[in-house]
Amino acid sequence: MTVLTLGPAGTFSHELALRLYGDDIELLPTIGKIIGAVASGESDGLVPIENSEAGGVGSTLRGLQDANVFIVEEAYMPIRHHFAARCDPGDLAVIYAHPQTHEQCSGFLDRLGVGIVHTSSNAASALAMLEREDAGAVVSLSAAEIYRLPVLRRDVQNSSENVTRFVRISATPRDDAGCTRCSILVDPAANRAGLLHDLLGVFASRSINLTRIESRPSRRGMGQYVFFIDFDLAPGWEEAREDLRRMTVVKELGCYTRREVPAWT
Amino acid sequence: MTVLTLGPAGTFSHELALRLYGDDIELLPTIGKIIGAVASGESDGLVPIENSEAGGVGSTLRGLQDANVFIVEEAYMPIRHHFAARCDPGDLAVIYAHPQTHEQCSGFLDRLGVGIVHTSSNAASALAMLEREDAGAVVSLSAAEIYRLPVLRRDVQNSSENVTRFVRISATPRDDAGCTRCSILVDPAANRAGLLHDLLGVFASRSINLTRIESRPSRRGMGQYVFFIDFDLAPGWEEAREDLRRMTVVKELGCYTRREVPAWT
Repeated sequence: MTVLTLGPAGTFSHELALRLYGDDIELLPTIGKIIGAVASGESDGLVPIENSEAGGVGSTLRGLQDANVFIVEEAYMPIRHHFAARCDPGDLAVIYAHPQTHEQCSGFLDRLGVGIVHTSSNAASALAMLEREDAGAVVSLSAAEIYRLPVLRRDVQNSSENVTRFVRISATPRDDAGCTRCSILVDPAANRAGLLHDLLGVFASRSINLTRIESRPSRRGMGQYVFFIDFDLAPGWEEAREDLRRMTVVKELGCYTRREVPAWT
Repeated sequence: MTVLTLGPAGTFSHELALRLYGDDIELLPTIGKIIGAVASGESDGLVPIENSEAGGVGSTLRGLQDANVFIVEEAYMPIRHHFAARCDPGDLAVIYAHPQTHEQCSGFLDRLGVGIVHTSSNAASALAMLEREDAGAVVSLSAAEIYRLPVLRRDVQNSSENVTRFVRISATPRDDAGCTRCSILVDPAANRAGLLHDLLGVFASRSINLTRIESRPSRRGMGQYVFFIDFDLAPGWEEAREDLRRMTVVKELGCYTRREVPAWT
């Protein structure tokens, strides 16, 4: 099955899709378009969901909130950023970087002190750099190779522990068998003292480990939130989910298996 | 006292600072630079912290996590975005928009179908548009006025309820007297089943309302989070905070008063 992921060629998503799924990949320009196409059932998709430095990826979380798609696999990949330029560092007029990449490489970029222009992807940074002799870019190794960019400095990320979690999404959920984790979206709709405490109690009382909880705007007005909750598949998880359903609105985001991918060097 | 806020002239932060604090304002190019200057004690600052559509502002949350600054006031301002261009819509080659603005106006921008280039602020979008005859930009009303941009379409935001919450930050906390809300940052350092449930229990058992909880990466590695918690100042809040201190690491982010500002029309 074709897997849709984020283009142009050379994004980290593209690199991971090639390594996990081989050549049957189609590149789309935004995460929103990928999620829309996956919801229509034509293909699966691979999108980033969170980074260990920069946090949740807004457009992916919004897509999971709005569209009928399910997570069927998660994959963790170390992220290494490289600085490319075709001029001397002293002659740089501009550096192109994706906003998340800028955050993840803020130490190096602040020290350089050159103006940053944000782009829509790491591969877009590479393409923008090619248009100006006095431009630099922060790019993945695969983007540097695809677009033949001279790498002046490797590993410019703030943290050597920088990891992005990607999810494969599909129009249909997978069977729970063999899965290690599930994700749900909880919409409390109301706000009262102790509500979130009560909701989390259904997991705590069964010693089910929550591996992540992230609030996002409900988009019904300031101060109203929904919660993305990931939990380990431990005994009692189905009863916990049923208890939760009796208390609030729950959208299932799927149960899935886990893959680890080493950094590409 | 001079208040530092986000430039160039015409950002929503700048508009709000002018309305709240008058003319004694200094514009800096990034939120990181504002927070750094505030921490050094030279001035107060005004920065956005969350938007009702797009969620938390990463660079502000990271600054609160890392720097010794305190919230002393919060202000809520309705956000209205306007579409400006100097050419016919059919001749547009590019539209400049801040990534958060892009998210908040995704319906209108998707329908237009013109390529979007992200900028570092709404005012930067206005400045970028001035350099190209075939460019459009999504801007604030004040940016349109300052840079004399022709507004082709008003109110292009997805939601008429779009509100941004700003905070005034200072190197010293204010006295609790008269405050309505406090913010803390909780760093659980460990992860075990039920930990977050236990932490929230200190508020629930006293019927103290949490108005917001947002997880952010601890930046110590994937799967480790810190929690930004805002709560209403209700009886027992000081004991709740003490209980929490016995359980985990708590960074105080300040107690503050609230202001509401109508949209500028």
